[in-house]
Amino acid sequence: MSNRLNEVPLLPTERVDDLLTHHLHIIQSDEVFSFSMDAVLLARFASVPPRGRVLDLCTGNGVIPLLLTTRTAAAIEGIEIQPRLADMARRSVAMNGLQERITIHEGDLRTLHLTAGYGVYDAITVNPPYMPLNGSDLKLNTHQAMARHEIGCTLEEVIQACVRLVRTGGKVSMVHKPQRLVDIISLMRKYRLEPKTIRFVHPRANLEANMVLIEAARDGKPEVRLQPPLIVYTDDNEYCPEILDIYYGPKEVQS
Amino acid sequence: MSNRLNEVPLLPTERVDDLLTHHLHIIQSDEVFSFSMDAVLLARFASVPPRGRVLDLCTGNGVIPLLLTTRTAAAIEGIEIQPRLADMARRSVAMNGLQERITIHEGDLRTLHLTAGYGVYDAITVNPPYMPLNGSDLKLNTHQAMARHEIGCTLEEVIQACVRLVRTGGKVSMVHKPQRLVDIISLMRKYRLEPKTIRFVHPRANLEANMVLIEAARDGKPEVRLQPPLIVYTDDNEYCPEILDIYYGPKEVQS
Repeated sequence: MSNRLNEVPLLPTERVDDLLTHHLHIIQSDEVFSFSMDAVLLARFASVPPRGRVLDLCTGNGVIPLLLTTRTAAAIEGIEIQPRLADMARRSVAMNGLQERITIHEGDLRTLHLTAGYGVYDAITVNPPYMPLNGSDLKLNTHQAMARHEIGCTLEEVIQACVRLVRTGGKVSMVHKPQRLVDIISLMRKYRLEPKTIRFVHPRANLEANMVLIEAARDGKPEVRLQPPLIVYTDDNEYCPEILDIYYGPKEVQS
Repeated sequence: MSNRLNEVPLLPTERVDDLLTHHLHIIQSDEVFSFSMDAVLLARFASVPPRGRVLDLCTGNGVIPLLLTTRTAAAIEGIEIQPRLADMARRSVAMNGLQERITIHEGDLRTLHLTAGYGVYDAITVNPPYMPLNGSDLKLNTHQAMARHEIGCTLEEVIQACVRLVRTGGKVSMVHKPQRLVDIISLMRKYRLEPKTIRFVHPRANLEANMVLIEAARDGKPEVRLQPPLIVYTDDNEYCPEILDIYYGPKEVQS
């Protein structure tokens, strides 16, 4: 745990958190953006090629690209529309010395294909804003509101961006709220992203799911597999072993 | 358990099985049709109104109508396209003395609206054939092949029948294979049956789902709930308590 981090400037309210695996660290701010369990689960759930090009949409402070470096040697890119968050993500990349592995784009996922091209990525991950715009929550500050609500892009625009950017046969992995499952599945099929693997996350074994992990293949064959449920807490209020494994990695648990 | 059953004729290979709840019995034949756990789980999962009209499509030997009599005072109808199975179902209804509660139609669900009318049912249940036609399994006998394969009707035709027959706001509950989830959800939305509740059934907590229970509301608001996973077997190869409760009912467990 004594690995040297590169020194990068921190802005007011920012702190450095330990990602608890592979000595990775990340810049966070409760007033701007902090990642949640959703991102960690998606970074483990997603199929990523051993090499090639991987893209993370709505990358926020870059937590998914950072975690993906532990699972693939692919070139990883992230795109974030908010300059403040893209800057946080870039500083986190630099802090971990991962500038050769991760590139953070500041920009709009709806137009990324104009510069990146069509069908150029082998895999895409996305933890999009969950909440449809409905006029409420206007008191949230802009950074958090954009990360949580479909202000910058709708679910349909996210899925359209995925299908433009991923190659045929490439994978698109998303984490979202189960309430939106019908929207997600219907839109994915509409845009020829065929859902192939779904996993629901339940806070406890006897509670409704509060997250869904879903992976689609561009132009894939219609047949989906439903993975075992991922349960977060045991009846004794402890993290389940699989959650500990996802957070700390199988090796780190021993140390 | 000493309740008198009405005497009905049995055909060769037929036997009478105990439905293990409310002293219900059913005529089965391994060479013609025997119900499976899928039907029992659907009969418990489905929302049924306390009164009104309930319809079971693809009713087979009538297991779902029989079980639904324990949950509702509604008038229950079943429709089965195979005369041999419709006859079995009618004899099971008579055997249990439930002719006043259950009506079995022999006919094609694709044309039932012509006689029954549009939007006349408060709730519909269906355990349709799971397998798309693909030319295989032709050595199965006709009764079993029709119950298992989309010979008499496709999934789309089943869903079209449901939307014609159920009233606005009425419920349609289906059990199917999770592999078809994307087809089911896409078709339901296409025909204005909005999925509202989904539950996956896993043989064990660490295995993929092998059944999905899904309930839609005609013209419902788009938001679905994912119920806790239903696990069939414990790690010790025993039925989980909830499965025992579904099969035997909470009262019967004590006796």
